Amino acid sequence: MAVTYELIKTCKQTGARRGRLHTPHGTIETPIFMPVGTLATVKAMSPEELKEMDAQIILSNTYHLFLRPGHDIVKKAGGLHQFMNWDRPILTDSGGFQVFSLSKLRQIEEEGVHFRSHLSGAKLFLSPERATEIQNDLGADIIMAFDECAPYPAEHDYVKRSLERTTRWLERCIAAHDRSEDQALFGIVQGGMYRDLREQSAKEITSFDLPGYAIGGLSVGEPKSIMDEVLDYTVPLLPAGKPRYLMGVGSPDALIDASIRGIDMFDCVLPTRIARNGTCMTSEGRLVIRNAKFKEDFTPLDPQCDCYTCRNYTKAYIRHLFHADEILGLRLTSYHNLHFLIRLMENVRDAIMNDCLLDFRNEFFEQYGLSEERSF
Amino acid sequence: MAVTYELIKTCKQTGARRGRLHTPHGTIETPIFMPVGTLATVKAMSPEELKEMDAQIILSNTYHLFLRPGHDIVKKAGGLHQFMNWDRPILTDSGGFQVFSLSKLRQIEEEGVHFRSHLSGAKLFLSPERATEIQNDLGADIIMAFDECAPYPAEHDYVKRSLERTTRWLERCIAAHDRSEDQALFGIVQGGMYRDLREQSAKEITSFDLPGYAIGGLSVGEPKSIMDEVLDYTVPLLPAGKPRYLMGVGSPDALIDASIRGIDMFDCVLPTRIARNGTCMTSEGRLVIRNAKFKEDFTPLDPQCDCYTCRNYTKAYIRHLFHADEILGLRLTSYHNLHFLIRLMENVRDAIMNDCLLDFRNEFFEQYGLSEERSF
Ligand SMILES: [Zn+2]
Ligand SMILES: [Zn+2]
Repeated sequence: MAVTYELIKTCKQTGARRGRLHTPHGTIETPIFMPVGTLATVKAMSPEELKEMDAQIILSNTYHLFLRPGHDIVKKAGGLHQFMNWDRPILTDSGGFQVFSLSKLRQIEEEGVHFRSHLSGAKLFLSPERATEIQNDLGADIIMAFDECAPYPAEHDYVKRSLERTTRWLERCIAAHDRSEDQALFGIVQGGMYRDLREQSAKEITSFDLPGYAIGGLSVGEPKSIMDEVLDYTVPLLPAGKPRYLMGVGSPDALIDASIRGIDMFDCVLPTRIARNGTCMTSEGRLVIRNAKFKEDFTPLDPQCDCYTCRNYTKAYIRHLFHADEILGLRLTSYHNLHFLIRLMENVRDAIMNDCLLDFRNEFFEQYGLSEERSF
Repeated sequence: MAVTYELIKTCKQTGARRGRLHTPHGTIETPIFMPVGTLATVKAMSPEELKEMDAQIILSNTYHLFLRPGHDIVKKAGGLHQFMNWDRPILTDSGGFQVFSLSKLRQIEEEGVHFRSHLSGAKLFLSPERATEIQNDLGADIIMAFDECAPYPAEHDYVKRSLERTTRWLERCIAAHDRSEDQALFGIVQGGMYRDLREQSAKEITSFDLPGYAIGGLSVGEPKSIMDEVLDYTVPLLPAGKPRYLMGVGSPDALIDASIRGIDMFDCVLPTRIARNGTCMTSEGRLVIRNAKFKEDFTPLDPQCDCYTCRNYTKAYIRHLFHADEILGLRLTSYHNLHFLIRLMENVRDAIMNDCLLDFRNEFFEQYGLSEERSF
C-alpha cells in the first residue's frame, strides 16, 4: 500500500493514539493537523513558512483545482507537488463536499452529480470515476473517495439512502483508482447523527481493505456534544491498524477531544480564515487584533508562543497592519494561527507518550477559557 | 554628521559614481534603489525577504504614518526600526509630497500647510517644524526637509515662489531638527523644469551644509527626455562629497540613465505597485502574468533571474494564483520585481567599477526593448 500506519503508543489516561503515517513523500507524526491549501496554496503562506512551522502534510481541494486552473494543467506541471513547490505529503479531498456546499443547481443521480460552477455557472459533472481520475492527475499521496456529505439536520431515511450510495460510489472509486502504488485511497464513513446508520456505514466502508478511513458528515453545524457522541460510538468500529481522519475539524477543543477518541488526522480552514479577519488563537483564548485596546500594546500576540510572528512583532504593529489593509498583517496572523494548531498537536502527541492527555486537556481548556463540563 | 558619503570610483565611460553611505544602521552601497514601505511595511514583503534580496535601505512615508498609526505610537514602540522589525537603514520623506498629491482642500501658507486627511477628512496641519518633529519621533537614519513639489507643468513665476519658500522652510527644518547626531537631514532642490530656477534652488539649498541633497519635482509626469535634461544641468551643481537622491524614480531605464548622470539614491513604489497587478519586470521587458499565453508555461518569470520566485515557481502557477486572487501571487511578483531592481543596481555598480556603464546601458536597453536614441 502507498500509505501505511504504524501505531506507536496508546495513552493510558485516554486511549488516544500516537502513530506514524508513512507516505511516498515522507512520514507524518499523528495525531496531526493538516493546513488547507484549497487552490494549491495555503492562503497567505509560502511553502517555506509551512515547513518552518513544521507542517507535515497539507490538504488541497479537488473541486477548486478542477475549476481553476484545471487538473490537466496541474498534471502537465508534473502534479500538485511540483506545481505548488511542496515536496511533503499532500491529501486531496474528492470534491464531493464542495459540490454539495458550494455549487449551484446540483442534481444527484446514481451515476454522479450534475452541478454548475460557483464561479462561471458552467455545467459540470463529477462522479466517483471522474473524481478519482482528477485526483490521480493531481497526484496527492492520499486521495479521498467521492461521497455525499448529508446536511445537518437530515431525516433518517435520507441519510440512509445517502450513505448506501456513498458505499456504492466507494466501490466505483476503488475500481477507477489507477495509481494505488503511490496514492492511498481512503474511504469515508457517513451516517449523520444516527448511531445505527454510522454502524451500517462503518461496516460497509471497512469491508473494503483500504489504507485509511475517514469520518465525514461531522462539523456540519451540529453541537459539539453530538460530534463527541458520534465519535464515541463510530471510532471503535474502525480498524486499529489504519489511520482515522476526521474531516473538517480544526477548533482547538475539538482537536483535543477527537484525539482522545482515537482520531489521527484533522483538517480545517478555520485557522487561516479567522486569521484573515484578524482573529488569533492564543494560549489564553481568542484575540481580535483590530480591537482598540491593542493600540499601544507592544507585547506579542501570545506570550507563550515562539512562532516567527510572536518572536518579532507586537500586537500594536499587527493591529496597525490590519487597519491599514496591509498584506503582511494577514501573513503574520495566518502564520501564528497555523503554528498554534501545529504546536497544539505536538503537545497532544507528547501528552499521549506521557499518558497524560486528559490532564493536558483540562489545563488547556482552563487556560483557553473553555470551561464546560465534558465526559469521556 | 549622522550619515557620511564616501566616493569610491567614477566610471570613466559615463561619470557615474560608485560610493558608500555610512549610516547609524549600517553602510549602503551606492547607487542604490530603496524599496518603499509606505505604512511601515513594504507591501506584501517581510523584512527577512527584503534582506534575502539584499535590500540595504527602505523608505517610509511620514504623511501616511502621521495618519496611521500616528507617530506617537511609533515613538512609544521605540521608533520605526523597532516597530516594523527592520534593523537596516531607513529614510523617511517629509510628508510634503503626499500633502500636495493626496490630501484634500489643502491651503499653503508661509507657516505651513492646512489640509484634510484623505482617509477621515480630519483637519490637519504640517509645517517644517511639525514634519521634522514627526520624523524625529519616527527615528529614520535619513530624514527629508519639508518642501513643496511643484506640479508639472507649472508657470515659471509659481515655481520660483515655491522654490524660494522651500528654501525658507529648509532653514526652519534645520532649526527644528533635534536629532542631528543620529538622523541626517537632506535638503531638496526644486525648480521644476526651468534651468535658471534649478540653478537658483541648488545654490540656495547647498548653501546649507547638509549630509545629503535630493532632487525633487521630477518624475511628476514630464517626458523622460526632460528629466534627463534637468539632471544634466542640476546634478553638477551639487557638491561631490555628498550623496544625491533622485526622489520617486524607479523605472529601469531612468535608474540607469540617472546613475549615469551622477545620482546615488532612488526610491519608487513602481515595482511593488505593478507587481500587485501582475506586471513583472524581466530582462526581456515587462510581462503581464494574467495573460492566457502563460496558462501552460512551466518556465520561470525570467530565465535570467535567480530570485526566490524564479527558482521555485512557474509562470503557469503564478498566473493561477493571480486568477484565483491568492495572496501568494502578489508575494511572488513583488519579490521578483524588487529583486530585479536591486540586482539591476548591483549590475550598475559593477559596471561603474569596470568603467563600462554605457556598454551595460546599451545592452540592457536592447534586451529590455528600450530602443530610443539617447545622448550623454
Ligand atoms: Zn505566535
Ligand atoms: Zn525572479
